[in-house]
Amino acid sequence: MSDALPGSLVGPVEIVGAGLIGTSIALACRRAGLEVLLTDSSDDHLRTASGLGAGRATTPDDRPQLVVVAVPPDHLGAQIARALAGGAVVTDVGSVKVGPLAAVAGVPGVERYVGGHPMAGSERSGPLAASSALFDGRPWAVTPHPGSTPEAVALVEALALLCGAVPVRLTPDEHDLAVARTSHLPHLLAALAAGALADAPADHLALSGQGVRDVTRVAAGDPALYGQIVAANAHAVGALLTGVRERLDAVIEALAGGDRAGVEAVLSEGVSGTRAIPGKHGGPTRPTGTVFVAVPDHPGELARLFADAGASEVNIEDVRIDHDPGRPVGLVELTVDEDRAEHLLTSLESKGWVTHR
Amino acid sequence: MSDALPGSLVGPVEIVGAGLIGTSIALACRRAGLEVLLTDSSDDHLRTASGLGAGRATTPDDRPQLVVVAVPPDHLGAQIARALAGGAVVTDVGSVKVGPLAAVAGVPGVERYVGGHPMAGSERSGPLAASSALFDGRPWAVTPHPGSTPEAVALVEALALLCGAVPVRLTPDEHDLAVARTSHLPHLLAALAAGALADAPADHLALSGQGVRDVTRVAAGDPALYGQIVAANAHAVGALLTGVRERLDAVIEALAGGDRAGVEAVLSEGVSGTRAIPGKHGGPTRPTGTVFVAVPDHPGELARLFADAGASEVNIEDVRIDHDPGRPVGLVELTVDEDRAEHLLTSLESKGWVTHR
Repeated sequence: MSDALPGSLVGPVEIVGAGLIGTSIALACRRAGLEVLLTDSSDDHLRTASGLGAGRATTPDDRPQLVVVAVPPDHLGAQIARALAGGAVVTDVGSVKVGPLAAVAGVPGVERYVGGHPMAGSERSGPLAASSALFDGRPWAVTPHPGSTPEAVALVEALALLCGAVPVRLTPDEHDLAVARTSHLPHLLAALAAGALADAPADHLALSGQGVRDVTRVAAGDPALYGQIVAANAHAVGALLTGVRERLDAVIEALAGGDRAGVEAVLSEGVSGTRAIPGKHGGPTRPTGTVFVAVPDHPGELARLFADAGASEVNIEDVRIDHDPGRPVGLVELTVDEDRAEHLLTSLESKGWVTHR
Repeated sequence: MSDALPGSLVGPVEIVGAGLIGTSIALACRRAGLEVLLTDSSDDHLRTASGLGAGRATTPDDRPQLVVVAVPPDHLGAQIARALAGGAVVTDVGSVKVGPLAAVAGVPGVERYVGGHPMAGSERSGPLAASSALFDGRPWAVTPHPGSTPEAVALVEALALLCGAVPVRLTPDEHDLAVARTSHLPHLLAALAAGALADAPADHLALSGQGVRDVTRVAAGDPALYGQIVAANAHAVGALLTGVRERLDAVIEALAGGDRAGVEAVLSEGVSGTRAIPGKHGGPTRPTGTVFVAVPDHPGELARLFADAGASEVNIEDVRIDHDPGRPVGLVELTVDEDRAEHLLTSLESKGWVTHR
């Protein structure tokens, strides 16, 4: 235990669960010079994480200042309780927050527990996929309960900052409602949209454009993991799904009855929702314009495009490469400030690019 | 009328409706050296399109070889019938195909009508947004009815090819089922996901990540236009929505009853659906890997990144810039062939980039 100022993270930090998230936090702590202790039921994970420089295996005499529980949802409650028994401040990185808190509600020392949820991940898992940069600029929900001590809260926020993340303080209830809306509901609706494609004829799917690819992308995630996450937030997700079913019924009825205004009402709600999502860097969404550029699909062409775009002094807010079903030319979509789009287009055309807006 | 070989597109081509799509087709025809005649109820649109070099205003003596009807869905039937009366081959570019065909079923000359639907668009509308490159590499549904003559079908496919698109032949019924699945259903589900965000507190929305942005992006589209499109395909969309409601009910019930297998079943269907979408260039989806790179958010940095990536001789399949809520650093996600990802990562790190997978 340290005798540093309250809220000052000096270590050691114990990581329970050396998977993708746990090992990434460990690497970020090591980068900051903290001592890191690693605990995992898998000796393989432990050896791999140690080998990556993420820390050393925990021994019985270790007295960590902070324990980070990074185990699958089903094991969070037990591991948080075990960690609290050691006297340290304890946080976790679970995707839902009400359940784990309920599991440790009566445990001695629960005032030292503050939930957490870094909004970062990867298509890969395990310590080999870990990176100290995983959390750079990402939101990191910090979810104290009413009994959490201010010192414990400060320590967990310090961990988020040390990892390069942006702490967002919410109650556990609010957090679970928030991720139900911003993560679990979109995931389930994406899965329903994708599910409708599963048995479609190939020549129907040939008409797939960027829209359906975007809507369904997240639905490619591991069903067992997302099933566990969604089930752990069943109450909040269920309430939202019931609301969605009501609006879905309204659309079905409006379509059947030729009531175009009823369809438009649901579409208009959707427009409002897309405008509510915060823009880049957390600010309000700025008006953007799009420039499309045809780019031959081989190495080096994107570099040439971005060199030419860079020379135009226009900051590119977003890029996507449209998947071209018929030929080896990519259509690259550049999103820029609305009032800079025309300048970028003119500038690229002057360098021989085929563009349009 | 021309005396060229059947199916050979020699013009003149009349474009009825000089909006984004009509004017873009006109420009592509002019690029190929064809004479183009323009018809529009708006003198402004006509003057603008002519001024862009898209063609000249139609006169009563003109005898086009092919008429392309590019008007809003509500006016398709009447304009197709009017065009058929002139003796030319007629196509349209409407987003649904059964309705317009039904509207002209008994019209003399209907054997000269072949529906069409180029899968391209823009966030902008009107002739000023037009480009001869709009259709490059995009699918273009060509939807003959049983009475369509082979010559008419060949002429419409020739138009799609001339515009740089990839003709995909479907019956009108099949087309409407296909776009119901690949466009209208995803759009409505995206609107429902987005609608659930409309009244969410700002600190909940602060947890929004790339997933929810992707799922909801298309829901930002004009509700009046999409309402018209979806309503015109009410039967096919309604049937799919009814199927979605059944699966939604199953998820709600599974969540309420703690039946995790029931939730996973729907998520697994979603995974199958994402795998059914054809990959880049129409081929099967290849396994891809992702490399994340932290990039300062100012002009020129992306150019430097792509120059370095290009030097690594790895072909970049997709790019996205993750919107970073907290700071002026973008996280760029590069998608490449799975077996090239590690090489790209190592190569970028050797040039000083902070990367992870």
